[in-house]
Amino acid sequence: MSAAPSPFSARGSHAEIEEGVAFAPKFDEHGLIAAIVTDAQAGGVLMFAYMNADALTATIETGVAHFWSRSRKALWRKGETSGHEMSVAELRVDCDQDAIWLAVHVAGTGAACHTGRKSCFYRALPTGAPADGAKLAFVQDERLFDPAKTYGA
Amino acid sequence: MSAAPSPFSARGSHAEIEEGVAFAPKFDEHGLIAAIVTDAQAGGVLMFAYMNADALTATIETGVAHFWSRSRKALWRKGETSGHEMSVAELRVDCDQDAIWLAVHVAGTGAACHTGRKSCFYRALPTGAPADGAKLAFVQDERLFDPAKTYGA
Repeated sequence: MSAAPSPFSARGSHAEIEEGVAFAPKFDEHGLIAAIVTDAQAGGVLMFAYMNADALTATIETGVAHFWSRSRKALWRKGETSGHEMSVAELRVDCDQDAIWLAVHVAGTGAACHTGRKSCFYRALPTGAPADGAKLAFVQDERLFDPAKTYGA
Repeated sequence: MSAAPSPFSARGSHAEIEEGVAFAPKFDEHGLIAAIVTDAQAGGVLMFAYMNADALTATIETGVAHFWSRSRKALWRKGETSGHEMSVAELRVDCDQDAIWLAVHVAGTGAACHTGRKSCFYRALPTGAPADGAKLAFVQDERLFDPAKTYGA
């Protein structure tokens, strides 16, 4: 929930939301909106997080990705501890304006994940097989930094 | 919420969740998990939706994307009306296992959005400018099908 009034447009008609140019993001009952982050160069998904109105405003105005940390209950400028700041190459919104897509350039080692990996999505699950007992396989899981050194042990 | 018991692993320790091979997805208080869908060939984000345990199980077992429709409160095989079925090329999970990433091939015209466009993310917002009064710009917004004909007017 934002302390300051939201600077965004009020939600209009269905047609205005889907076919208009007014930015009227829909926040959920916790005051949050889903944010998908992809690599502006390589194209893969780097991470998934949530923004509140303050984080979305800061992201738009600074061009640097901000989120809402649900665990710390605080505004979170991504990279503030690790140095892996994300500069936004493009920001998009979806048809019903309840999800944000950021294509970013990641500073430092280029890692987006707190485990030290480039992407948070470093494990795959086979399809076409029973879900019961399915096992994850590590893919593109090289560590670009040591989280114990960066965040403390 | 799933009527059937979930076939997935129980949530283990922090280390097991982040560094293990057991698939232990975290569903939110509504029984849902976030699902990001990208184009397996071109790489961009096509859509964002949610899955419940049944939708996730069906997606894994059939290799065809299923979601939970929050508006219809029903299991939703994407493309069941429009023919734009999504076959999953790769399914990944993130570090804390509370988000799913599907790279897919879309059948039919290749459109993922109910507005007829390839991607739901057909509008961009400028950054480095005030959020107040920001206007969306249409990008890659060509319609691949006519929604009035596909879904009925």
